[in-house]
Amino acid sequence: MTPRNMMAVHLEDGQVSVRQRPVPRRPQGFALIRMMCAGICNTDLELLRGYYGFAGTPGHEFVGEVVSADAPGLVGRRVVGEINLACGKCSWCLRGLGRHCPARKALGIKGQSGVFAEYFVLPEVNLHPLPESIPDESAVFAEPLAAACEILDQMRIPRGTPVAVLGDGKLGLLVGQVLQLHGAQVHQFGHHREKLRIAAAAGITTHRSRKRLPVAAYDWVVDTTGSSAGLHQAVRMARARGTVVMKSTVHDLVSLDTAQVVVNEITLVGSRCGRFEPALRLLRAGRIRTADMISARVPLAEAPRAFDLAARGALKVLLIPNGTGNNI
Amino acid sequence: MTPRNMMAVHLEDGQVSVRQRPVPRRPQGFALIRMMCAGICNTDLELLRGYYGFAGTPGHEFVGEVVSADAPGLVGRRVVGEINLACGKCSWCLRGLGRHCPARKALGIKGQSGVFAEYFVLPEVNLHPLPESIPDESAVFAEPLAAACEILDQMRIPRGTPVAVLGDGKLGLLVGQVLQLHGAQVHQFGHHREKLRIAAAAGITTHRSRKRLPVAAYDWVVDTTGSSAGLHQAVRMARARGTVVMKSTVHDLVSLDTAQVVVNEITLVGSRCGRFEPALRLLRAGRIRTADMISARVPLAEAPRAFDLAARGALKVLLIPNGTGNNI
Repeated sequence: MTPRNMMAVHLEDGQVSVRQRPVPRRPQGFALIRMMCAGICNTDLELLRGYYGFAGTPGHEFVGEVVSADAPGLVGRRVVGEINLACGKCSWCLRGLGRHCPARKALGIKGQSGVFAEYFVLPEVNLHPLPESIPDESAVFAEPLAAACEILDQMRIPRGTPVAVLGDGKLGLLVGQVLQLHGAQVHQFGHHREKLRIAAAAGITTHRSRKRLPVAAYDWVVDTTGSSAGLHQAVRMARARGTVVMKSTVHDLVSLDTAQVVVNEITLVGSRCGRFEPALRLLRAGRIRTADMISARVPLAEAPRAFDLAARGALKVLLIPNGTGNNI
Repeated sequence: MTPRNMMAVHLEDGQVSVRQRPVPRRPQGFALIRMMCAGICNTDLELLRGYYGFAGTPGHEFVGEVVSADAPGLVGRRVVGEINLACGKCSWCLRGLGRHCPARKALGIKGQSGVFAEYFVLPEVNLHPLPESIPDESAVFAEPLAAACEILDQMRIPRGTPVAVLGDGKLGLLVGQVLQLHGAQVHQFGHHREKLRIAAAAGITTHRSRKRLPVAAYDWVVDTTGSSAGLHQAVRMARARGTVVMKSTVHDLVSLDTAQVVVNEITLVGSRCGRFEPALRLLRAGRIRTADMISARVPLAEAPRAFDLAARGALKVLLIPNGTGNNI
């Protein structure tokens, strides 16, 4: 039996708290899901800083168990899920690009309460049942890994090509691995020896970027730094006619030397969420070093500590139901 | 006989003057050219403002007559010429992209004295002899028209597609016409009724943009405003997954809402100089309304007045040899 009330994380005015809330009612077409594992993403930290004027329960990276649903086959299944709740009817949705539906809500970000709670609801069409071969702590990376895979859906990066990935954070390490597995020669630039070690273990060439960064050296540069300086740096590193992939969502206006972009005819490509299918294929094949990327597992009741760890630069901090798993 | 001395425009410290200079010596592989007609471009105005720390003779849009050259067939020919002086040996040059040669000089911009003079030199490989059917005052648009055509070399814009062109200046009007002739449905946004009239005469839909600009309305937007606000506006006008072509060289850092670029997965493409061939084809076919775009013809000796006219927002101001043509 599903209880009436549950524990849920609440963000408001820069504060993280844990509150008692009613278990959400399941609308038609939605599944009610019990959270088994959830990941804190940089977007959650930005929400905490006031991005989108957010107040409520955040969280969009999850593995859960379907408690109830319209489709009987879903009940009891372990699932991950796409975060954009699209209208299903507009021209974007009809082209399979519900991720850009103008009427969309976004799980734990905009208009839809998130997964940092004991229970949450999500449309059944958003769910991907998981094969047993993908453990929870890998599957919880499906959403950010899909965002990394999105780059390869948007553009054709020739195999064997050197690609600079700026940043050694959570998304940067996933992007580096995805592009390396694709066959690019990834050069990962970051500040943190221990994070770059994960990239190196995946066969990636790593560079501590305290030293001078190369100028006009790459046909492909991906900025995952999350900092406003990252784009400027990425443009400097790109060769004429090169491509800079923008994977950083920075809340403020970013200063850009557009003359350099124009004179060198550089292409900048914004890149956000991706399809889950390629991400789940990589996870199923065990090709992504997810275990190395988990910094901590924290029970939901201790969410403020989990946010604090994440904000201090930890890699993936997982929230888990109270009383389960190994708290590290 | 070529004289020993000539009149040449000189820019320095924000001042335009006209000076006596020796006629330049012709290096091997170069042609000595007598200027017949030259156009003032926004880049020249930016040089006057200190862009590239420029001091010397500017000018890169020209029609001239070859006075002497290594190739005897060139002598006496009326020519236009590409402005990038490339090494001819590097990987860029070997791919036909001397416009991006890292060792390049640029006529009247960097390392090579420009065409606002009675005589100048340029490598013979840069020259395009003109057919008689293209009059001087059309041919002088070859260089900026090539820059407009560059867009179609860089990307495939489907025929019939609405394209927003921001800006009704010299380059904007050429871009609008090139894209309209390509088969796009061009919507030109500008501030000046009389300039937009030229676009309208070319069959382009025009909008005075004092009113609110449409948001998320176009798959293709070209920013030709030359202003730092233009890019921001262009990004707002682009639909998700749309493309913004950056045709404005702005000297300062430009503020950009990169979150919008990332969330909407917009592609920004820097675009600069282009090949002359498509431009000369359009001019030969008489398909570009160049006559409407000429605001004034000013003798070289009165160059300060010509720069002043151009800086006050005139369309194309032409410099002509002293004692020729109709000064309007």
